[in-house]
Amino acid sequence: MSQDSQFHLNAFLMGVGHHEAAWRHPRTEAHRVLDVAHFQELGRIAERGKLDSVFFADGLAVGPRIKHNTQAIFEPVTLLSAIAVATEHVGLIATASTSYSDPYTLARKFTSLDHISSGRAGWNIVTSAGADEAANFGVDGIPAHSGRYERAEEFVDVTLALWDSWEDGAVVLDPETGVFADPGKVHTIDHDGPRFRIKGPLNSPRSAQGRPLLVQAGSSESGKEFAARYAEAVFTAQRTLEQGQEFYRDLKARVVKHGRNAGDLKVLPGIVPFIADTEEEAKALEQSFTDLISPEYSLRQLSTMLGVDLTKHSLDAPLPPLPPLDEIQGNKSRYQLVKDLAADGSLTVRQLIGLLGGGRGHRTFAGTPEQVADELQTWFEQGAADGFNIMPPYLPGGLDDFVDRVVPILQQRGLFRTEYTATTLRGHYGLADVDNRFAGVVDEASA
Amino acid sequence: MSQDSQFHLNAFLMGVGHHEAAWRHPRTEAHRVLDVAHFQELGRIAERGKLDSVFFADGLAVGPRIKHNTQAIFEPVTLLSAIAVATEHVGLIATASTSYSDPYTLARKFTSLDHISSGRAGWNIVTSAGADEAANFGVDGIPAHSGRYERAEEFVDVTLALWDSWEDGAVVLDPETGVFADPGKVHTIDHDGPRFRIKGPLNSPRSAQGRPLLVQAGSSESGKEFAARYAEAVFTAQRTLEQGQEFYRDLKARVVKHGRNAGDLKVLPGIVPFIADTEEEAKALEQSFTDLISPEYSLRQLSTMLGVDLTKHSLDAPLPPLPPLDEIQGNKSRYQLVKDLAADGSLTVRQLIGLLGGGRGHRTFAGTPEQVADELQTWFEQGAADGFNIMPPYLPGGLDDFVDRVVPILQQRGLFRTEYTATTLRGHYGLADVDNRFAGVVDEASA
Repeated sequence: MSQDSQFHLNAFLMGVGHHEAAWRHPRTEAHRVLDVAHFQELGRIAERGKLDSVFFADGLAVGPRIKHNTQAIFEPVTLLSAIAVATEHVGLIATASTSYSDPYTLARKFTSLDHISSGRAGWNIVTSAGADEAANFGVDGIPAHSGRYERAEEFVDVTLALWDSWEDGAVVLDPETGVFADPGKVHTIDHDGPRFRIKGPLNSPRSAQGRPLLVQAGSSESGKEFAARYAEAVFTAQRTLEQGQEFYRDLKARVVKHGRNAGDLKVLPGIVPFIADTEEEAKALEQSFTDLISPEYSLRQLSTMLGVDLTKHSLDAPLPPLPPLDEIQGNKSRYQLVKDLAADGSLTVRQLIGLLGGGRGHRTFAGTPEQVADELQTWFEQGAADGFNIMPPYLPGGLDDFVDRVVPILQQRGLFRTEYTATTLRGHYGLADVDNRFAGVVDEASA
Repeated sequence: MSQDSQFHLNAFLMGVGHHEAAWRHPRTEAHRVLDVAHFQELGRIAERGKLDSVFFADGLAVGPRIKHNTQAIFEPVTLLSAIAVATEHVGLIATASTSYSDPYTLARKFTSLDHISSGRAGWNIVTSAGADEAANFGVDGIPAHSGRYERAEEFVDVTLALWDSWEDGAVVLDPETGVFADPGKVHTIDHDGPRFRIKGPLNSPRSAQGRPLLVQAGSSESGKEFAARYAEAVFTAQRTLEQGQEFYRDLKARVVKHGRNAGDLKVLPGIVPFIADTEEEAKALEQSFTDLISPEYSLRQLSTMLGVDLTKHSLDAPLPPLPPLDEIQGNKSRYQLVKDLAADGSLTVRQLIGLLGGGRGHRTFAGTPEQVADELQTWFEQGAADGFNIMPPYLPGGLDDFVDRVVPILQQRGLFRTEYTATTLRGHYGLADVDNRFAGVVDEASA
């Protein structure tokens, strides 16, 4: 069981819903994928439910998704900035890749969101695995898995240093003396590493929460080590309670091995909830989405996920044999998950696509509000979760239902906050203040 | 005289005002430099005045400004996103550098702002000249002037191609057939140049105005050629009507030489207006700001501007001899402007600092609302401007005064719009729709 008595909730938002056919379903209005007001509304709904945060994923290529998929229209930090000014409490997490950006630019972008939101920004750290993304940044083929993580580590180290480059209290703003900032509290970082040389300081002061929350979602061996070292929240796809418990134990042990407290990292498994008055209605609702899946799109999506071309494969035959894990340079954990699902050879490709349609490998759950609450409570109390990554299959309705029907039950059971008690995203997740490595350091340049 | 009967107005916004001592003056509240609501208010004031656009500059280093200067807290595109959702009409222009970013990332960021604002985004294209900025991106010393512009040209070419990679109408959004986008209208760009290799397409559809407005502010020889080729609006520092006319004639001739219409580029000289009921009061107001200048800060600022260390120089002696223009790798036009001001040797450094304090080389003008309006009308009618870059010395008051006291006079004289007649930023500036190079092209990959 978690150390905490209450758990955490993040709303993972995507277009008009996570289900890949969401935009075709009568419960959504497809055109809202292009409407910033839709996303502001989602932020306000999450805030009505006292959720810790909302989250937008991102990618740096269109990939195989052009024809049938609605994602990736807004760059998430610019989108979250528009949501920040329409909300007051909810945290704002965005994916950004360490593979194709500069630490100075990324640090600045997230600090800017952190200032705009008064300390509610979070960074989901990803490395970019795809050949499609590489081709938009002058790189041929698929970048090697290990090199991506080596770059990511140096990238995060230097980004953290930039976020420390202004101490708390560096901004003096004294009109009388004409002093804007105390140069003794603004530091160069003088980083000189294998991939980055950066002098600093960052051109923006420290934010209200010290620095943005660090989030991570890789579940490969390198991904888990990376998370254990840096992450404060982890999004993960776990399909059974046992798998969730094993992942939770494993990751917490790694966190402790890295000299951190187990509670310094919150494990948030994903769940795609279909909610209705009865279990039967919930399952029928899920089926109504599955029925709208476009096999052509799904085969391309699955091919990309596995790194195996399935676009000519029969929908009604089992999955062909897959290459061994160590040949995979892309998303290893998602690859393993699909391989496990298809292991006994009983699933046709069509059935597999149906299973993956809700949340691309994340667990779907169809039930009553009580059943959803029970499921979350069980995972939390049985040591599989510090909270959950809620992935509404359709939006805004699926988020409305979770907030208005499931959250009150969780609150009645004492499992979730009834009011915000902190003002920052780090505060919502119950994380300690961040020390600043430069606090009190006198460096020559600024003396 | 301009071809148009009305001119254009951009509000160049910076902290609590352009005057370097603005934040020390009783007409401002210094802490608002950190307050996003302040900047949203400025956007709404500009919109109340029916201004074409607001603009935020940017830099990628703290530079010599830490102690006495209040700039560069927010990254401008994230800031404009927050302003976009607080306004309906006014254009939103941000600086971004071609020196230290990737075209794919920059194209996406501005397209995202363009979607969030329904077609009101503009990009002020800059190259980064400073050693301080270079040191934050692994580059030693000051990048050569010519190399910066060569990179900028390829950068803009490929960014324009990315913005064309989705045709108008590519987004189908048909729930019945399950088609989100028409792959025949989404194109790879397959750019393979000396500095960038980018496949495309961009991961965001074409915006309501086709693509963001292109703005430029370099006035060096390379800068003017670059502007003549690409820019649709140019911000420029011109201190006298004659200099303004010469710049205007020169730039328009270059535009025509590049095969464009003279009207395809709008010339917007900067002006820092001190507005009061009488000329005497306006001049006293300006003096009250000059009196608050911190010489220590200004000497560092001037040293950076000139690339000459003046921090040990006496404030009451004339400027020392300056190196020839062709040795300058930084902002050549600003260098020449200061050199011209100091040419006859009669100005002390302190006097020079006072002259530059309002707008860092841009023209300051102190007078009544009628005198400010007269001045703008003269420049417009005498062939020195298609509009103006209004740089309020203090904010929000200085923008309030311009909007509430000068704009009505301009409207009465028929020189400025009384209502918005267009819905996009390109529309406000009277620019034609943008052709799409890929319209109707059938490429194999997507067929």
